[in-house]
Amino acid sequence: MRGLDQLCEFVSIPSVSTDPKHGPDMRSCCQWLVNWAQARGLRAEIWETAGHPAVFIQSPPVKGAPTLLIYGHYDVQPAEEPALWATPPFQPEVREDRLYGRGASDNKGQIFMHLLALEQWLEQGAPMQIKVLIEGEEEVGSPNLPALLEQKRAQLQSDLVMVSDTSTALKGVPTLHYSLRGIVIFEVHLQVAARDVHSGVFGGTSPNATHELAKIISGLHNERRQVVIPGFYDRVRPLEGLEKEALEKVPFDQSAYQGFIGCRELVGEEGFSSNARRWFRPTLDCNGMGGGFQGEGSKTIVPAKAWAKFSARLVPDQRPDEVMECCRKYFEAIEGVTFLAGDGGPPYLLDPTGPASGYLQMARQALQKHFEQEPLLVRHGGAIPIVSQFETILGLSTLLMGFGSPDDAIHSPNEKFELNNFRRGMPAILDFYRAMAGCK
Amino acid sequence: MRGLDQLCEFVSIPSVSTDPKHGPDMRSCCQWLVNWAQARGLRAEIWETAGHPAVFIQSPPVKGAPTLLIYGHYDVQPAEEPALWATPPFQPEVREDRLYGRGASDNKGQIFMHLLALEQWLEQGAPMQIKVLIEGEEEVGSPNLPALLEQKRAQLQSDLVMVSDTSTALKGVPTLHYSLRGIVIFEVHLQVAARDVHSGVFGGTSPNATHELAKIISGLHNERRQVVIPGFYDRVRPLEGLEKEALEKVPFDQSAYQGFIGCRELVGEEGFSSNARRWFRPTLDCNGMGGGFQGEGSKTIVPAKAWAKFSARLVPDQRPDEVMECCRKYFEAIEGVTFLAGDGGPPYLLDPTGPASGYLQMARQALQKHFEQEPLLVRHGGAIPIVSQFETILGLSTLLMGFGSPDDAIHSPNEKFELNNFRRGMPAILDFYRAMAGCK
Repeated sequence: MRGLDQLCEFVSIPSVSTDPKHGPDMRSCCQWLVNWAQARGLRAEIWETAGHPAVFIQSPPVKGAPTLLIYGHYDVQPAEEPALWATPPFQPEVREDRLYGRGASDNKGQIFMHLLALEQWLEQGAPMQIKVLIEGEEEVGSPNLPALLEQKRAQLQSDLVMVSDTSTALKGVPTLHYSLRGIVIFEVHLQVAARDVHSGVFGGTSPNATHELAKIISGLHNERRQVVIPGFYDRVRPLEGLEKEALEKVPFDQSAYQGFIGCRELVGEEGFSSNARRWFRPTLDCNGMGGGFQGEGSKTIVPAKAWAKFSARLVPDQRPDEVMECCRKYFEAIEGVTFLAGDGGPPYLLDPTGPASGYLQMARQALQKHFEQEPLLVRHGGAIPIVSQFETILGLSTLLMGFGSPDDAIHSPNEKFELNNFRRGMPAILDFYRAMAGCK
Repeated sequence: MRGLDQLCEFVSIPSVSTDPKHGPDMRSCCQWLVNWAQARGLRAEIWETAGHPAVFIQSPPVKGAPTLLIYGHYDVQPAEEPALWATPPFQPEVREDRLYGRGASDNKGQIFMHLLALEQWLEQGAPMQIKVLIEGEEEVGSPNLPALLEQKRAQLQSDLVMVSDTSTALKGVPTLHYSLRGIVIFEVHLQVAARDVHSGVFGGTSPNATHELAKIISGLHNERRQVVIPGFYDRVRPLEGLEKEALEKVPFDQSAYQGFIGCRELVGEEGFSSNARRWFRPTLDCNGMGGGFQGEGSKTIVPAKAWAKFSARLVPDQRPDEVMECCRKYFEAIEGVTFLAGDGGPPYLLDPTGPASGYLQMARQALQKHFEQEPLLVRHGGAIPIVSQFETILGLSTLLMGFGSPDDAIHSPNEKFELNNFRRGMPAILDFYRAMAGCK
């Protein structure tokens, strides 16, 4: 299969961004990409950042023709617990039409499909410029990407961003994601007394911070599992029209989904399906809580302090600052609470009925042709902060055309990439380039 | 003041039971006690245990006369954070009529009052045998005391146990405690899913263990702050008659009490005063809880697991095994809960209207004479497991006549002992001995 040997070489470089001892591997990986591109007559350069460098590759500019910016990352998650890997994580191996190795799916396999498509694109001399930005810090939160986007704004100028760093919504069914949820993160610290007191001597008279925090947390949702914080649902786009129709057609394998979570039943906001709950509705989850004695055994105190960490997931058109303020107001009205605002990021929407919707249609047709089935056009429940950054810093819309499979075990032992997606996806990408090139 | 220099010598021995490096000090402390007693013609011996030894001192037996067993401990809490001590913890110093030093109040000062009283008792040749058991592991939970009581049952044979290891209920007001609360300790572990899942991808559909545990904890008490667990209040003696009358006369300095805890308001079971809540009513407190992400920063998961540790405080005539079973039944009926039973101990009651009540009256009169005020005759909210052991192993009732002050800072830096209590308490103890000697 064309390019598979080269992909194996790419995957064999242990470019683990979080581990300082892999610093030299990060640079080798950049150099490998630059060499690959230059050998094919592409312009390629390494862009230094305050952290790991990024690689920028571009085809020759074509006057008056559109420009596509492709984003991916060459860094990978650590491959700890070697005993759990059937074969070593950095010795990629093909078994049962899958490529096993750390980064095979996330994101080396997917970004390499674009490089292979670009290689053919060049051979065909088609009329559009393609730029590829491959960063080295995605797995550590892309701390230096915003500064890089600002600095290289001119070179990154394009008409659309394409990211292939997601999984299909259902295994084997090609998927286009056109929306992401935003996020608001905060902590709540509760103090009801100056000190922990003895549960024998004072128990029955002293307020208990764990009881009070439990009341606060359990009071955040009503019986319909709606968030009770005033203003929380302001600006949420109602689920209606074409999106509603499309959503209803997306199959949902409840037993597989529930089996993955390993829960007795799925729970969520009343009146919405599971897919609507995770893609179209905002949520508020406590991510962690604690209070009182944390050691082994027992310590019979009435605790004075407790805390909880929360993340709210936002949907279009909610605004992180407004949601943060609703939450702050709600919690700060409770005696003894200190509210600590954390990060926030807006939801993302490539309006499927708006001006960029033409690209969605092109991608849909390309996928349909090569996967021989109708692709899913769905929202995504997670946040991909870089997508918002492309929008806010570069003013660009992003199309999410991912070729991972939901069972790829990214971030886990035995990560793999479905070669069927690789085989069918690459020509689909090329077809999309062709369609986009003809569109202006 | 008689005996003060000797008490200072006793306090200067750093007999910290929890710290292995103080092993030799533990033994020196025993030897110091034995030497003190033998120099006064008393029989004294060191009783070895599987841990730190105990000291047993006795006056000559008096045929046909009653026997009093006095219990105390020579081990002390660690004196960490030396910077917080105004003077070194093991260099006792008198300031403003207080003796400062680790163990000055808990329990060296108090047990030494009995030794001084015993010295005078001997000089007067009064008709009662007095036995003193001074253990070395009270601050680490007396793990070897039950075995010692079993082994030395014959030598410990007596009519009553007296313990001076508590504080007066109000500063400066002599206090007799005639009841203790019991305890039941358990843990609850909740698992709602097989794994933590991503709060973006799955948020809105997956059950959240922290939310569910919060519901469980906040549902344990109703709006009147009563425990809702069926059977929890079974066998609780109603607050009535003489005890109720006595309780109503006990002053309660709400502002000082609340000031110590440092809370905005006191809370507890509706329909009872603060003193009734802490002495006459059982309670259920979460002592610590946790779940989900526990690190610094944020991790946007929907947590699968959460846990809480509880202690219930019991009052006469509740039984620990019955209360544990009520709790087990209640929690195990909740899907996903694992219930882990911990230790339990019964409440204690020297019935103030029962057969041993005569001793209470003698102690009351002795305290009244020397403190020149009516002593408080009250229950105690805490548990002193040894008191139950004296009852179950030796069949003996215990009278708690403590001379600590609520502000003695026991277990904290700058522990002190009020010399006024020392000066007045010692002759009161001697008067009690005399009264008891004449009672049979």
